[in-house]
Amino acid sequence: MPVQRADARRNYARLLAVAVEEVAAHGADASLEQIARIADVGSATVRRHFPTRHALLEAVFRERVGGLCDHARDLTGRPDSRAALLEWLGAVTASAATIRGLATALTRDLTADPGAVHEHCATAQLTEAGDPLVRRAAADGALAPGVTVTDVLTLITGIALATEHHPHPAAEATRLLGLTLAGISPGP
Amino acid sequence: MPVQRADARRNYARLLAVAVEEVAAHGADASLEQIARIADVGSATVRRHFPTRHALLEAVFRERVGGLCDHARDLTGRPDSRAALLEWLGAVTASAATIRGLATALTRDLTADPGAVHEHCATAQLTEAGDPLVRRAAADGALAPGVTVTDVLTLITGIALATEHHPHPAAEATRLLGLTLAGISPGP
Repeated sequence: MPVQRADARRNYARLLAVAVEEVAAHGADASLEQIARIADVGSATVRRHFPTRHALLEAVFRERVGGLCDHARDLTGRPDSRAALLEWLGAVTASAATIRGLATALTRDLTADPGAVHEHCATAQLTEAGDPLVRRAAADGALAPGVTVTDVLTLITGIALATEHHPHPAAEATRLLGLTLAGISPGP
Repeated sequence: MPVQRADARRNYARLLAVAVEEVAAHGADASLEQIARIADVGSATVRRHFPTRHALLEAVFRERVGGLCDHARDLTGRPDSRAALLEWLGAVTASAATIRGLATALTRDLTADPGAVHEHCATAQLTEAGDPLVRRAAADGALAPGVTVTDVLTLITGIALATEHHPHPAAEATRLLGLTLAGISPGP
């Protein structure tokens, strides 16, 4: 990023924060005019920071994935390793549908398998960031034997995919994550 | 189905059984020539029973879904309600990827949302057939409180979706079903 004046940086940060909220609420088709209006900037300012919708969605995607990675790192020092892991898994689940929607939107016209490249990239980053949380919880006996960060992220991906047509996908995904963590049929 | 002579019925049953196996192994693109060869019938016989690939795939789809429904009904009388439910869920999981692939193939050229109609139909049948197994296991305390047949089928659908690009999707789906049943982090 080139050197920016302080107000340009503030505008960028505010625009991005608003875009994250609007995309979470309305998906990849969120209105750019609405984002400019809420952020209280003109459309020329939006275009300067994000020349295309693609550029804005790409920035939101990176912000969402990067935010989850930062969250994992912040939680690593928490004394209760199980609570730390469950907090992070809840955050990943709450974001999974939006991140997947963005991945698809960003490559809709480019590839035979929309979203695959971005999803792969998000998964790689989340795997690296979440691995210490999973390992620490496993060492403390808070995980079923042999469960890896990949297993957990695969199950969350599945829950996001299976709930995407539900009327309340985020709430339903959170509820199903709870069942998966506790076990549907934990044993005789 | 019109009245058929006994050998025609046997041919049909053998063809369908072979088609089920070949589609399970190779997906919706399974070779019709190979199916005719293994079933030891001529291509005219194949065409008489299944005038198009679509007709054959539709029959395999109905056979797979119907087979799982029959399986659920057969298990309803088993003394161990938990074992009965787990056996059925394992069977559904093992078939989920194939059924989904067929649903998509059957409507690939017809709808904006390939597979949706057939998947909806399969889910409705499996929900009805599996409901007594789930209710009996719940009554026996073998399920987490409040878990429904819909929850279980949604989680299995998610596992199937999240593992479809895995090198060994059926084995991986079965393993993840095991984690989901037992719980990833069953509690402190």
